[in-house]
Amino acid sequence: MRVSFEELNAFLVDHFPQGAAYGALVDLGDGWAEMVLNVDEVHLRPGGTVSGPAMMALADVAMYAALLGKIGLVPLAVTTNLNINFLRKPVADVPIRARASLLKVGRTMAVGDVFIYSEGMKEPVAHSTLTYSIPPNKSEN
Amino acid sequence: MRVSFEELNAFLVDHFPQGAAYGALVDLGDGWAEMVLNVDEVHLRPGGTVSGPAMMALADVAMYAALLGKIGLVPLAVTTNLNINFLRKPVADVPIRARASLLKVGRTMAVGDVFIYSEGMKEPVAHSTLTYSIPPNKSEN
Amino acid sequence: MRVSFEELNAFLVDHFPQGAAYGALVDLGDGWAEMVLNVDEVHLRPGGTVSGPAMMALADVAMYAALLGKIGLVPLAVTTNLNINFLRKPVADVPIRARASLLKVGRTMAVGDVFIYSEGMKEPVAHSTLTYSIPPNKSEN
Amino acid sequence: MRVSFEELNAFLVDHFPQGAAYGALVDLGDGWAEMVLNVDEVHLRPGGTVSGPAMMALADVAMYAALLGKIGLVPLAVTTNLNINFLRKPVADVPIRARASLLKVGRTMAVGDVFIYSEGMKEPVAHSTLTYSIPPNKSEN
Repeated sequence: MRVSFEELNAFLVDHFPQGAAYGALVDLGDGWAEMVLNVDEVHLRPGGTVSGPAMMALADVAMYAALLGKIGLVPLAVTTNLNINFLRKPVADVPIRARASLLKVGRTMAVGDVFIYSEGMKEPVAHSTLTYSIPPNKSEN
Repeated sequence: MRVSFEELNAFLVDHFPQGAAYGALVDLGDGWAEMVLNVDEVHLRPGGTVSGPAMMALADVAMYAALLGKIGLVPLAVTTNLNINFLRKPVADVPIRARASLLKVGRTMAVGDVFIYSEGMKEPVAHSTLTYSIPPNKSEN
Repeated sequence: MRVSFEELNAFLVDHFPQGAAYGALVDLGDGWAEMVLNVDEVHLRPGGTVSGPAMMALADVAMYAALLGKIGLVPLAVTTNLNINFLRKPVADVPIRARASLLKVGRTMAVGDVFIYSEGMKEPVAHSTLTYSIPPNKSEN
Repeated sequence: MRVSFEELNAFLVDHFPQGAAYGALVDLGDGWAEMVLNVDEVHLRPGGTVSGPAMMALADVAMYAALLGKIGLVPLAVTTNLNINFLRKPVADVPIRARASLLKVGRTMAVGDVFIYSEGMKEPVAHSTLTYSIPPNKSEN
């Protein structure tokens, strides 16, 4: 792990001006990251639950955080594939939490998975698998 | 096809209070729909291009539109699986357009794919495949 | 868990006349199953490693085993979606092992994931996520 | 397109000793390939239809053929991701046909999709999306 929680958090806040709409970093370890999204009106879908896009966005940024925590602050790492299964209806008015774990970090790509939970529910509401492409000249800040 | 462009458009505007942040319906046919998203600040990612989540959200709602155009205005149809490959860097300051086509509509689920384009580029910037679950008591048309 | 290791093993041997080409059940628990495939010539690909299709087939049958162990011997449960990421080059001349775990078992569908290992390697060689459709008149147990 | 039908066919026969179990090349164009699998006992699953693994294997090799037809005979190109949706029950005793089309060929990776048909059925029985990794020192044989 090459980046501290504070460094990564500052980087995310800096690079995502949309900020809290994407979620906030709450924990970081070697090969994993946790982010929480405070659900508001903009994240709901017809039927009144948290929208799929809100969960996909959180999965994407949580994996980005897990990856940058591992390889350094490489802004140009980009998602090349995301697959997500929506498993259960999230609770509408509580935060959702994503736990992203790296399954492989190669020279040019990384793969990981993300479990998403509604706060207070034991079973995951969604599970996602993602591939990131790592640019060749990756800086380490 | 059971729903007109005008009916579906009114339904989407009504059920997605976030409105233009999700894109706007621009065309509808039997088993397909096209939506356009006017990209603004909130849809960009580090590096200055259209974010993956903006494209995933557009793919999701475009498939929802194609499906509702086919089976009627069923608000509780929900995405169960989405897979997306990001193929090329979108242009930052032009709209993105999604064309969603149904591959199968069964009694309880539907599958389709979506091509996403940056306006003016010939090659797609992303390709997505989605599964929707259709609730049992579906038609209210 | 409604089915014993012996019952499920007998069922699999009975229903898959191709037998060992698909792998053999080695362990079974509540919501999970492990299967092992003894790799031979038919499972190799150009370059001399275990082929992708051999791993996909093992992932598919391991999830089928985990599901039937949970819901009973339902021969008509069918895969509706499979997503797999190939993470590392498997060792050519050792067995591969799949560990399938259910993430959700609903009334009409089930979702799970599978990790595949080359015997003796610590890191997984592949990771797959699958959805099975469960027929309405399911239990014959 | 850099490889002729005859060259690619000879290459596939040479590199896949399992041969017809994987399907045979029947057509090849610039960015696409068609392969046919003559279904026999080994490709069936419980319920008597063509197995998912038989379709996944055909999708995988058809995309491999489309890619090698485009970039040259690169034996070490490997699948990194495959996603497949099973749409309809195939007919048990007729061949299945796969049409693979490239969506993007980059320097280090390629993405494409594959439609699979039962001979004589108009609607596809499965649809798959694949990513291949292209080795850096790709020979053209």
